[in-house]
Amino acid sequence: MFEKIKDLKTYEAGKPIELVVREYGIKPEEIIKLASNENPYGPSPKVIEEVKSKAHLMHRYPDDSFYELKEGLSKKFGLNAENFIIGAGSDQVLEFAVHGIYPSRVLMAGITFAMYEIYSKQVGAEILKTSSKEHNLKEFYDMYKEYKPEIIFLCVPNNPLGECLDADDVYDFIEKVDSQTLIIVDGAYQEFASFKDSKKALDVKKLTDYPNVLYTGTFSKAYGLGGMRVGYGVANKEIIKNLHKLRPPFNITTLSLAAAVKALKDEEWVSKGIKNNFKEMEKYISFAKEKGIEYIESYTNFIVLFIENSKEISNKLLKKGIIVRDMSSYGFDAIRITIGKPEENDKVIDILREIS
Amino acid sequence: MFEKIKDLKTYEAGKPIELVVREYGIKPEEIIKLASNENPYGPSPKVIEEVKSKAHLMHRYPDDSFYELKEGLSKKFGLNAENFIIGAGSDQVLEFAVHGIYPSRVLMAGITFAMYEIYSKQVGAEILKTSSKEHNLKEFYDMYKEYKPEIIFLCVPNNPLGECLDADDVYDFIEKVDSQTLIIVDGAYQEFASFKDSKKALDVKKLTDYPNVLYTGTFSKAYGLGGMRVGYGVANKEIIKNLHKLRPPFNITTLSLAAAVKALKDEEWVSKGIKNNFKEMEKYISFAKEKGIEYIESYTNFIVLFIENSKEISNKLLKKGIIVRDMSSYGFDAIRITIGKPEENDKVIDILREIS
Repeated sequence: MFEKIKDLKTYEAGKPIELVVREYGIKPEEIIKLASNENPYGPSPKVIEEVKSKAHLMHRYPDDSFYELKEGLSKKFGLNAENFIIGAGSDQVLEFAVHGIYPSRVLMAGITFAMYEIYSKQVGAEILKTSSKEHNLKEFYDMYKEYKPEIIFLCVPNNPLGECLDADDVYDFIEKVDSQTLIIVDGAYQEFASFKDSKKALDVKKLTDYPNVLYTGTFSKAYGLGGMRVGYGVANKEIIKNLHKLRPPFNITTLSLAAAVKALKDEEWVSKGIKNNFKEMEKYISFAKEKGIEYIESYTNFIVLFIENSKEISNKLLKKGIIVRDMSSYGFDAIRITIGKPEENDKVIDILREIS
Repeated sequence: MFEKIKDLKTYEAGKPIELVVREYGIKPEEIIKLASNENPYGPSPKVIEEVKSKAHLMHRYPDDSFYELKEGLSKKFGLNAENFIIGAGSDQVLEFAVHGIYPSRVLMAGITFAMYEIYSKQVGAEILKTSSKEHNLKEFYDMYKEYKPEIIFLCVPNNPLGECLDADDVYDFIEKVDSQTLIIVDGAYQEFASFKDSKKALDVKKLTDYPNVLYTGTFSKAYGLGGMRVGYGVANKEIIKNLHKLRPPFNITTLSLAAAVKALKDEEWVSKGIKNNFKEMEKYISFAKEKGIEYIESYTNFIVLFIENSKEISNKLLKKGIIVRDMSSYGFDAIRITIGKPEENDKVIDILREIS
């Protein structure tokens, strides 16, 4: 019956890691979760109030045109409603693109966001990865010329590594690729990168001028709404129209919609969070320098530390109630730590000092 | 680029109908929405409290194993966690099934839930419909024998018509179909049907004994959580394992998860809503009988009235701030009305009396 997907791996959701940690006798409120790049400050208090005030409307389907949300996004990017598609996380927009194009081959960086591969495998595409782990556009171009993939994924900045291409290099690359190849520019962490370095700031409006570029953004990171599953795609209206063919109605919740609309109205909260993020990241950088630990310069809300015996270190942290991402499954002896709140980062560094 | 889906129609979300109604000078709070089969009573007050109390956790991804929710569903149906998959509405579970099987042909009733056709067209399947508008299992069987569809959709009870197959007839049909054909039994309104008539009550546990049956259920209707997008699939663990291959992580929101878990703990609220639903439905039935209007006996939270000039009637209602579903696009001179709250139904019937 399911012949078509017989080679796909089942995503086996294990026991929640919080339960594992609790088995070490750690109280739920003492667990420090720095594994999923969630925004430790959460959304603006105004967003929380908004959602509480609309909780009695959970039986009502959302406005499926997402009129207000697209209005807000249009203002943010200087574009029009017809340039946007809303997804349950930007992941879902990636899904629309992959399922809509149904590519034979896709190209991505050696280590990058896992969903590119997962969605592409669902349609039986061959997965091409650069031998460089980080984004190397020279290598992307060579592989594009050789294999002619139908979709190229650029993660700018890159999750889970943290490095970031310069905007000008992205534009140059796009211009060298033929217009029948879709280039997906994933900007899930763009707000962080553009704050840190204006050279990294993508001009999203400019990207919509290309006939073959889809930019994706999210409310999950800078806006602190990871659990609410709201993302969006931005592109010229032809691409958006095609993606809409695969969008099921009501694909985000009534409360997610309310939250996202409100979140766009408190950019001050977002900026404050990003500023704190990089201030706190300095603590990890100082620690790494002091210990002679290599790290990847990060334009996101996480940092990769090449700490020896990363698997063992991660487990030791787990026993202390701290959840980070071990990178050994990527062939890296490293851990990825989401930048937490000040007191969380202090505690993590204290413990790392003890155990590493 | 999007060759594969060039024949698909874009789902063009229009202006929200509330905005249309407001153009007639009607205040938002005076609009009566009886078009989407939302539960007019909403979720249990305990669910609303739960969501408010967790609104500060919107930045946290949900537990992706949906451990607690599957526990609750396991109790409801006398099954185990491995018999369930959670979807963003039961729609998404249908999507997993259709995309996983990638059928050449699918079979469904003449008039039934629109998403069966939408998802099936996405994968290029031929859509076979019985000439009977309502479910006619004799005709389903004949067409199954002739065309060998890979998926058969049964909507029990049927949306948007409201009729309902007897459970025994469903089992008999399943037993006559070969085990390589997936039969999807959509029970979105089962709670209503089984309350009204025990002959309509499907034994979901029994359905999991078949190797080729997927039952889908939802929190959108009886549980009053339409806007929160939580549904589920129930089947033997082999089918569930396969469907999981297509499930993206975190496919429902943190607050949707909290709401659904809590909703399962207040079945009394659900029962009360269902009881009120059928009590209120009597008002429409009396009106129809009085006026000599034909109607379809309904096992759901809506009723189809074969009222003449349905398009005109719907528009007249719209101008009074009442939104119902005109069925003329289905070739029926009829309207579908969601059963609302007592005062809403009274008002609708008063106006129908005036204008029809």
